[in-house]
Amino acid sequence: MSEVKKVVLAYSGGLDTSVILKWLQDTYRCEVVTFTADLGQGEELEPARQKALKLGIKPENIYIDDLREEFVRDFVFPMFRANTIYEGEYLLGTSIARPLIAKRQIEIAKLTGADAVAHGATGKGNDQVRFELGYYALMPEIKVIAPWREWDLTSREKLLAYAEKAGIPIEMKHREGGSPYSMDANLLHISYEGRHLENPAAEPEESMWRWTTAPEKAPDAPQYVELQFEKGDLVAIDGVRLRPHELLAKLNELGSRHGIGRLDLVENRYVGMKSRGCYETPGGTILLKAHRAIESITLDREVAHLKDQLMPRYAEMIYNGYWWSPERRALQALIDATQQTVNGWVRVKLYKGSVMVVGRDSPTDSLFDPTIATFEDDRGAYNQKDAEGFIRLNALRLRIAAKLEKKRGV
Amino acid sequence: MSEVKKVVLAYSGGLDTSVILKWLQDTYRCEVVTFTADLGQGEELEPARQKALKLGIKPENIYIDDLREEFVRDFVFPMFRANTIYEGEYLLGTSIARPLIAKRQIEIAKLTGADAVAHGATGKGNDQVRFELGYYALMPEIKVIAPWREWDLTSREKLLAYAEKAGIPIEMKHREGGSPYSMDANLLHISYEGRHLENPAAEPEESMWRWTTAPEKAPDAPQYVELQFEKGDLVAIDGVRLRPHELLAKLNELGSRHGIGRLDLVENRYVGMKSRGCYETPGGTILLKAHRAIESITLDREVAHLKDQLMPRYAEMIYNGYWWSPERRALQALIDATQQTVNGWVRVKLYKGSVMVVGRDSPTDSLFDPTIATFEDDRGAYNQKDAEGFIRLNALRLRIAAKLEKKRGV
Amino acid sequence: MSEVKKVVLAYSGGLDTSVILKWLQDTYRCEVVTFTADLGQGEELEPARQKALKLGIKPENIYIDDLREEFVRDFVFPMFRANTIYEGEYLLGTSIARPLIAKRQIEIAKLTGADAVAHGATGKGNDQVRFELGYYALMPEIKVIAPWREWDLTSREKLLAYAEKAGIPIEMKHREGGSPYSMDANLLHISYEGRHLENPAAEPEESMWRWTTAPEKAPDAPQYVELQFEKGDLVAIDGVRLRPHELLAKLNELGSRHGIGRLDLVENRYVGMKSRGCYETPGGTILLKAHRAIESITLDREVAHLKDQLMPRYAEMIYNGYWWSPERRALQALIDATQQTVNGWVRVKLYKGSVMVVGRDSPTDSLFDPTIATFEDDRGAYNQKDAEGFIRLNALRLRIAAKLEKKRGV
Amino acid sequence: MSEVKKVVLAYSGGLDTSVILKWLQDTYRCEVVTFTADLGQGEELEPARQKALKLGIKPENIYIDDLREEFVRDFVFPMFRANTIYEGEYLLGTSIARPLIAKRQIEIAKLTGADAVAHGATGKGNDQVRFELGYYALMPEIKVIAPWREWDLTSREKLLAYAEKAGIPIEMKHREGGSPYSMDANLLHISYEGRHLENPAAEPEESMWRWTTAPEKAPDAPQYVELQFEKGDLVAIDGVRLRPHELLAKLNELGSRHGIGRLDLVENRYVGMKSRGCYETPGGTILLKAHRAIESITLDREVAHLKDQLMPRYAEMIYNGYWWSPERRALQALIDATQQTVNGWVRVKLYKGSVMVVGRDSPTDSLFDPTIATFEDDRGAYNQKDAEGFIRLNALRLRIAAKLEKKRGV
Repeated sequence: MSEVKKVVLAYSGGLDTSVILKWLQDTYRCEVVTFTADLGQGEELEPARQKALKLGIKPENIYIDDLREEFVRDFVFPMFRANTIYEGEYLLGTSIARPLIAKRQIEIAKLTGADAVAHGATGKGNDQVRFELGYYALMPEIKVIAPWREWDLTSREKLLAYAEKAGIPIEMKHREGGSPYSMDANLLHISYEGRHLENPAAEPEESMWRWTTAPEKAPDAPQYVELQFEKGDLVAIDGVRLRPHELLAKLNELGSRHGIGRLDLVENRYVGMKSRGCYETPGGTILLKAHRAIESITLDREVAHLKDQLMPRYAEMIYNGYWWSPERRALQALIDATQQTVNGWVRVKLYKGSVMVVGRDSPTDSLFDPTIATFEDDRGAYNQKDAEGFIRLNALRLRIAAKLEKKRGV
Repeated sequence: MSEVKKVVLAYSGGLDTSVILKWLQDTYRCEVVTFTADLGQGEELEPARQKALKLGIKPENIYIDDLREEFVRDFVFPMFRANTIYEGEYLLGTSIARPLIAKRQIEIAKLTGADAVAHGATGKGNDQVRFELGYYALMPEIKVIAPWREWDLTSREKLLAYAEKAGIPIEMKHREGGSPYSMDANLLHISYEGRHLENPAAEPEESMWRWTTAPEKAPDAPQYVELQFEKGDLVAIDGVRLRPHELLAKLNELGSRHGIGRLDLVENRYVGMKSRGCYETPGGTILLKAHRAIESITLDREVAHLKDQLMPRYAEMIYNGYWWSPERRALQALIDATQQTVNGWVRVKLYKGSVMVVGRDSPTDSLFDPTIATFEDDRGAYNQKDAEGFIRLNALRLRIAAKLEKKRGV
Repeated sequence: MSEVKKVVLAYSGGLDTSVILKWLQDTYRCEVVTFTADLGQGEELEPARQKALKLGIKPENIYIDDLREEFVRDFVFPMFRANTIYEGEYLLGTSIARPLIAKRQIEIAKLTGADAVAHGATGKGNDQVRFELGYYALMPEIKVIAPWREWDLTSREKLLAYAEKAGIPIEMKHREGGSPYSMDANLLHISYEGRHLENPAAEPEESMWRWTTAPEKAPDAPQYVELQFEKGDLVAIDGVRLRPHELLAKLNELGSRHGIGRLDLVENRYVGMKSRGCYETPGGTILLKAHRAIESITLDREVAHLKDQLMPRYAEMIYNGYWWSPERRALQALIDATQQTVNGWVRVKLYKGSVMVVGRDSPTDSLFDPTIATFEDDRGAYNQKDAEGFIRLNALRLRIAAKLEKKRGV
Repeated sequence: MSEVKKVVLAYSGGLDTSVILKWLQDTYRCEVVTFTADLGQGEELEPARQKALKLGIKPENIYIDDLREEFVRDFVFPMFRANTIYEGEYLLGTSIARPLIAKRQIEIAKLTGADAVAHGATGKGNDQVRFELGYYALMPEIKVIAPWREWDLTSREKLLAYAEKAGIPIEMKHREGGSPYSMDANLLHISYEGRHLENPAAEPEESMWRWTTAPEKAPDAPQYVELQFEKGDLVAIDGVRLRPHELLAKLNELGSRHGIGRLDLVENRYVGMKSRGCYETPGGTILLKAHRAIESITLDREVAHLKDQLMPRYAEMIYNGYWWSPERRALQALIDATQQTVNGWVRVKLYKGSVMVVGRDSPTDSLFDPTIATFEDDRGAYNQKDAEGFIRLNALRLRIAAKLEKKRGV
């Protein structure tokens, strides 16, 4: 075990990261800096400060940062510019938060002169990869400590025993086995994994879902909402301009009310296994639909298709933890270059779990030309005879091949 | 105008194709063979025979074929193996029917010794391309007649006048301006375009939707349905094995009841313009969700990602009319090769417009291994320490680049 | 035929475009503006002025522009940043010149208030598409005249007769049937098509090649050349900084001397047919090899692979004439973003038709780290034990699948 | 260290694998089975048997297999069907041999009831990955031993000392430091890495190249060779049908004589570092050119472009060691499906380091139609007027966008 002088720990204030904090002190005999981020997970952060102090962390070594605006502006929105979905379903709510945590953790390491960073992700998941690829990309010489891969606290019992011995307060819920799920939340989503979900054949219990109203209990009347976009990013809801994280919070509120954004899927982890996860992404689900709709009238066809073809790779990069890689930045350059004209509004209808686009327009950038598309007389805007040549030349290679086949008697 | 002896017309029995029939007789002075296909559009076909007879078509020149099973088995199902969606939304209900119509039309041309084929698609749309690329690929020397691109019946009035003069019965609805939409239907979907929809900012009227119950009026209780797959194709619903077209009809019934599959979008046509279309694809919407879900536990990750990356191009091929092309066949070879292990069942919950997957399993082919994925003790099935090396080597190139940047003082 | 007041003709001064000039005057009774570009094709341009004057063009309507620097700087170099090759072989020498000609022609149309443009490309080739897509993208309302698709001068004899009648001087070579090839030349390449080459089984005659020494007659001693790159573009040869077009001219001289850059291939035209072409691209062939080599030490692996995967589509866009499209610009944004670090030098050895890279380095941006790659003791720069975890996790999905297959007894 | 009863070692008979053999016996105290493959590397294999016997291997535990035909037929040829090149240059000579060695090694493990396999690849390279991914994919429960990652023989001196102590004969060349390169050879290529090559700025010494005549010393007269293909595979040279490995050997002989196939490059290894390698692939270099040429007249354009777009990923799969993966098999299904029509002959000219295609034809499958492509009168095979509509519809979206830009005053 190499020597460590000071380590920055991604600290939630919960039982697990408190045990890690203690374990780092015990094992590495090093100074610990705690870093707690507000990403909109909806928890009080001050208790984390108190817990850290109790565990002997110096006040100047406690960092609690509100990263909500940066999170939505610089991570969530750029990702949505690409209509990003992983494996056809997952909106990447956890994946997109990790690079920001890694970035801030490294900034704090530099500020405090730390030589190591630590996180509470297990050795089976994607998050360890996302954290550590970020650390290494931003500070290549950093020492990374991943306690779950190192220690011998391999069962819940051992962990509780360690906590008890260390004087870490254990809430009743933990004594009773803790949440039946492993969860993660931020402004984009809340996720559930593990325990009760480990049988992908079984439906999750209704009580699991924490954010959204059940579609069955959602309002009986649909609600219409208008989203305004500028350069591909949401800027206003129903005419009210807000800051990025406020907009997403507002969309979450709307989506949650109408039971929107629940997802139950089996996904492929980067470390090679399949895993069942459930997600609630109320605002993101609305945003994705609306972004596609505003693109549908403002983006050129071939640009849109190029984006669609590249999107799965872009999603893979984010899912696998390569946000801070040069290949993600190169793709982002392309994506961002396409969004200059993505301006206008989209109207959606929210109702008991579904989002339906019911109107869209762009006063400045619409490529929809009713004088051409019309079924009525177009006064010469389009010459139907052009289609003959278009088809005949597109068919030429097919006809040459068919003639050859015929000649061969195939 | 080149000479034509006998032409096979894709004939619906409606006003437009009846006018075309007459116009072909008048203009080309040729024998006309009519071909009417049952693709599950939900209309009686016998009236088409009567109309054709009245217009002077010889009984042996009237072809009315039930293509429903072939349509679903050889066109719809292969397309769904790829989770095909055009521009993120459209399930290609019209696009996938055209190649079959073209194929059968050419078969009839060969049977009857015809030297030409004709269709009723306009010169602005995609369908003309889909029909004609099919014709040329299957019979390269065929003469193609596209009356809408040739004649001078450029307004509704002229068309009605021609019909009247020709003694074609005109129903009251046509005199009153006809449907406010241009429609197309088959077992996979019904589509609406034109007229009232030409303003993409305006919501379609509720009365437009013909198949699905409005979500607001759908049953208050959700319904669970179990879909069984073999080699990527649906084979049974709730334990009942049916033939392909019967399965899709059953899914349509279920989806329609629950308000599933409505879609309102602006799409990019192959001929270069944007167009607003509304679609109802109740069964297909369920099928797509379920197919992705059964793949999620039976397909290898990299195979699934490869399919996702190729899907937009495959969708483009079908949308643009290249079903009968060698590139579509090459992609199909890849897609079909991946479906051997796609066996198992998926349970979905249908409720007021939404489909949610709530369970899936494959007794024979599940790659989900709970002994590895578990958050509990895995008894050595997975060595968490492996993750360290995995991450460190994946990070190596990022670290080398970061060190260089640092050295450069960037 | 719609009315035309003034047309800008891409005019080479040769027989064909002189006939076109006259035909435009005769047919459209319009004012003709001639535009002749120096793209380094190696011909005197002043004779074109004299010919134009003789054909009645007003002096102020004659444009002769030296576009060589712009051609190489803004078209050739950006294309080489992507290592662009069409169908594995063709360096796109003709394709890349067309968008610049179209751009300048439209500029002149705007300057002179012309309402039409005309070109001398036939209706079978790619060039008509490249010109016209450029025209339409840059001036959507422009009237395009493509005489070869309109007139009835469908044979060489008719064309000569027309010229004779119009008093256009006909050189002896034309009377004798003209060149046995259709040719095009600019700073990037010279091409040969048609006539003697229409049998792809037959080797072209040695006398066809105009630029390069036959490899058999090239110097017996190899020559070493060093190319310096900055941000992906060539900036100096053997230490001498020159302007872009001077650099390419210098590389052409070197390559031609050593018999480099001959190519004989069958290619797929955008209009649907296969065509046999022969090309000499001496400088470009060297440049491509060298650019790949400088990228090999300065580009990240995944960025390089992403570029390789996108390159065929980028090449297709250029070949098909979509330089001025938004999708080409979007891809260019990605490509250019990757070239910031592509700085350094490459040494190549030229010898009797081949270019071999024999050394490369980047003092500022090399990602080649000998302390890691070494077969000798690396003093801990790389931990070989990391490879075990890397392999084991990459193998995990393969092992899970293999276990399942074994269980099934496959 | 887990227990091992019997291990199958990939054994070359050289010093390194002899030391490994002894080390396995010493360390694991297990029975060792040696496996030596003839892949056309051009070395006697019987000495390997003698050495194995001397090191105490039982005769029945010594496997020496001639895999040359299988290698070329089932690995090299399928790879060439895709025109496979890694990073624009490398023909994958080493990469493509590893999966076959892994396959045979696992077969022997099953035959002999071994529970482990071992190889002599280092922890820094790609080969360890290629071997081990193969092992795991074909026998998921196998124990893998990679001595270079485990032992403490971290320097040449320690290895020699170990060999001496173990009574392994050490040839003089090894005492003197051994080859200045790390080499690998098989029927497809010979490679050089390490030592003298670790400075990518320096040209390799002429004496390094073992197979090919230096271009400068190659014959002064070019040689023409005709290659015959069936379903994408080479079947005859100059009219003589031979078995796959005989054909490749013959091409190697021809290429080597004419100095063809030398390559000096920096490549990106899967484990994250850049590495400089030199390669001689004489026959493969000819084969690649010729295969592209036969495809150029027999493959449809879009199929060829699809293959070109997928090739870099296919190459990556092979380079990274995923031959035995489901994604490689899926791509192979596509590739093989395209090769049914790839029949015909190609004539190439070999001269002092370069291969030039000078003719190609396919009596049965040529899609080159001179009656269409001709510059002469085509008697109506192609209607030039079709091009107008083709261009106008392809330009439509560009024109709509340009009009909008103009309206906006951009």
